[in-house]
Amino acid sequence: MPAPEVTINISRLMGELDRLAQYSDAPAPAVTRVLYSPTDVAARAYIKELFEAAGLRIREDGVGNIFARWEGSEPALSPVATGSHIDAIPYSGRYDGTVGVLGSLEAIRTLAETGFRPRRTIDLIVFTAEEPTRFGIGCLGSRALAGSLSPAQLMALKDSDGNDFESLCRGAGYTGDLQAVALPEGCYAAFVELHIEQGVRLEQAGIPIGVVDAIAAPAALTASIEGDGGHAGAVLMPERADALLAGAELALAVERAALDTGSPNAVGTVGVFSVYPGASNSIPSQVTLSIDLRDTDQAIRDGMIDTIKVAADEVSGCRRVRIRIDTLNADPPAASHPKIVSAIEEASAHIGLRSQRLVSRAYHDALFMGILCPTAMIFVPSKDGYSHRPEEYTAPEEIARGVHVLALVLAELSSQPE
Amino acid sequence: MPAPEVTINISRLMGELDRLAQYSDAPAPAVTRVLYSPTDVAARAYIKELFEAAGLRIREDGVGNIFARWEGSEPALSPVATGSHIDAIPYSGRYDGTVGVLGSLEAIRTLAETGFRPRRTIDLIVFTAEEPTRFGIGCLGSRALAGSLSPAQLMALKDSDGNDFESLCRGAGYTGDLQAVALPEGCYAAFVELHIEQGVRLEQAGIPIGVVDAIAAPAALTASIEGDGGHAGAVLMPERADALLAGAELALAVERAALDTGSPNAVGTVGVFSVYPGASNSIPSQVTLSIDLRDTDQAIRDGMIDTIKVAADEVSGCRRVRIRIDTLNADPPAASHPKIVSAIEEASAHIGLRSQRLVSRAYHDALFMGILCPTAMIFVPSKDGYSHRPEEYTAPEEIARGVHVLALVLAELSSQPE
Repeated sequence: MPAPEVTINISRLMGELDRLAQYSDAPAPAVTRVLYSPTDVAARAYIKELFEAAGLRIREDGVGNIFARWEGSEPALSPVATGSHIDAIPYSGRYDGTVGVLGSLEAIRTLAETGFRPRRTIDLIVFTAEEPTRFGIGCLGSRALAGSLSPAQLMALKDSDGNDFESLCRGAGYTGDLQAVALPEGCYAAFVELHIEQGVRLEQAGIPIGVVDAIAAPAALTASIEGDGGHAGAVLMPERADALLAGAELALAVERAALDTGSPNAVGTVGVFSVYPGASNSIPSQVTLSIDLRDTDQAIRDGMIDTIKVAADEVSGCRRVRIRIDTLNADPPAASHPKIVSAIEEASAHIGLRSQRLVSRAYHDALFMGILCPTAMIFVPSKDGYSHRPEEYTAPEEIARGVHVLALVLAELSSQPE
Repeated sequence: MPAPEVTINISRLMGELDRLAQYSDAPAPAVTRVLYSPTDVAARAYIKELFEAAGLRIREDGVGNIFARWEGSEPALSPVATGSHIDAIPYSGRYDGTVGVLGSLEAIRTLAETGFRPRRTIDLIVFTAEEPTRFGIGCLGSRALAGSLSPAQLMALKDSDGNDFESLCRGAGYTGDLQAVALPEGCYAAFVELHIEQGVRLEQAGIPIGVVDAIAAPAALTASIEGDGGHAGAVLMPERADALLAGAELALAVERAALDTGSPNAVGTVGVFSVYPGASNSIPSQVTLSIDLRDTDQAIRDGMIDTIKVAADEVSGCRRVRIRIDTLNADPPAASHPKIVSAIEEASAHIGLRSQRLVSRAYHDALFMGILCPTAMIFVPSKDGYSHRPEEYTAPEEIARGVHVLALVLAELSSQPE
């Protein structure tokens, strides 16, 4: 089948991205959109409106994954999926995830406008909570779809205010019931996700399209430190068991663990550091910190976990504090499927765009969709590599190129007989 | 004049302490009572009721310092003052400050019950915000009384939610006008404050009464660190300018600065450590931390400030972050007045209690009252030295002894012709 000649309506798409960015709990240009918050619920209503206006049929599952369906001419064939997420960590930017959601919508609309009709059904999926902001665990929705989240795990989740998953989920209008959420392996013929790079490689190389051939293996841990509190004036230095100082040493040990691997891909980050009681004249008695570890090589990633546990034991011995380390998740890396990688490369070449294969060190829903079906991702450049901050930026023409490639890939994948 | 034979009604006092502890924004036994919060306002109403029931005449100034007056027989003589504070840092205990406020009330009531009538007027003062919780600055009320706080400084204060002093003050029913708050030097003949020790010295020595002959010189600084944010997966380790890791090194430098003085009294504490954006998969771009430094020797205390500034420069150079250090206050130490120290020692001896002179390393309103008049403090033991935490405890009989001594000291000081 010859590739359809699509024309991306970039001003329509940019207008929708702009409108979506207004659903935010932070002053512009920053965006904060936390799972199941009233702002998240309002943003969901807005994009569902857009999906309906485009003639897509909407289904939502028990945790709030949204499926917008474009029925194919042979609905008995397994469908093709695309999509991303719309939740945004506090004070982040407007392109992370949203380019994949609204870009998929634009790809579908422009395909339809050419008169193209897919053979296989196409599902546009908006995954619930790719970001770990609320419950400390990333890719909540795609994990649940892939059967990688048990009902017991889900029910044990609490946010920092102590609210449990179920009540927040119900508050947002979903049942919270995992029963019918997980999908069977092979349910989709393919999944392809469009996303901003969140790094500088495409920009530095001057290449418009990245083809993700692997996603690094992320692990998320929580360290809970318990020392001894007291009055900052009254308790002398040798008598102290200061949880904050223990936390400071542990945070530095996380950095050292990543550097000591010698792997250029290894990263270790402490992004959350909460202190109790948190008063200037009170010795901290409790600290909780998040530890995020990634490498493309699972053995290296797991080695960092071990190194950090050893460091935690040393700190706890020297400072007379108790440190408990919980592993929230330690997922295996995912390799993209050669068939989809080729489809992206061919679509790019077809419209005269250079492409480059990349490893993603950031987490994506494609990681979990990879458990269910062949996957790959399309990256577009991020200015200065900025992401998860208000300065996040990808130019309209760069987004248009990514959406164009996505449209051609969807046309190709949805036309394949098997 | 022979000392009056007072009988402390300890069950009445403990009942009132118990009731006051119920005005709290934390679950018992923890107490949280933050300046100008609805809970603080309600607690103020409760104690004013008690003062009125005891026949004291109430005046409140523009920032909410409460003066409960027992008129003397010679009102032309300068009055004697006592008192403490009722605000409590988050998740602290029920005795810090409150023992001095309700203990003073009990001392006055039992003196009155013996038929004693003071020659000099006695003012029971409840100081606004001894704790720095809301605005980062301790002893706000007594600072204002001593003229150590300018209107400009006061108006520049903001809490962590960005609320300014004036609007919060007005919200609590006070004018916020500093004009009539400052008192002239010599306005009081003496000030004596009863307080829990917040340390282990009295308990370990088995001595019921501490006589504070000096208050250590506290300094409060804020360090604001600005690095570079980004996605925890996408930005490689060598490219980072992580504000949290810089903050961790600075916190450890604060500890080292205290230890390196060689002074057993030197303490350095980081109690607040707030991280922006504070998401597990985001590299922290900003950290704000509090630094609390104390020593009985002002030169040693100032030396720690210098050491920390040098360390901050090193950290900022190595980690490519900007660090700004602001000094909120760096107060001189205060020496007690020999006349009042003697009065406390004699009162203790009169009722057969051993006493011991102590240095206070904790901040107290007496530090600023010392600018206006001769002062000293009475300490009672703290179980295990615990303070600023729910486990804070002083036994009823220990409180009763302190109140007994205070009553005799007030009787003595208020009877002196000049």
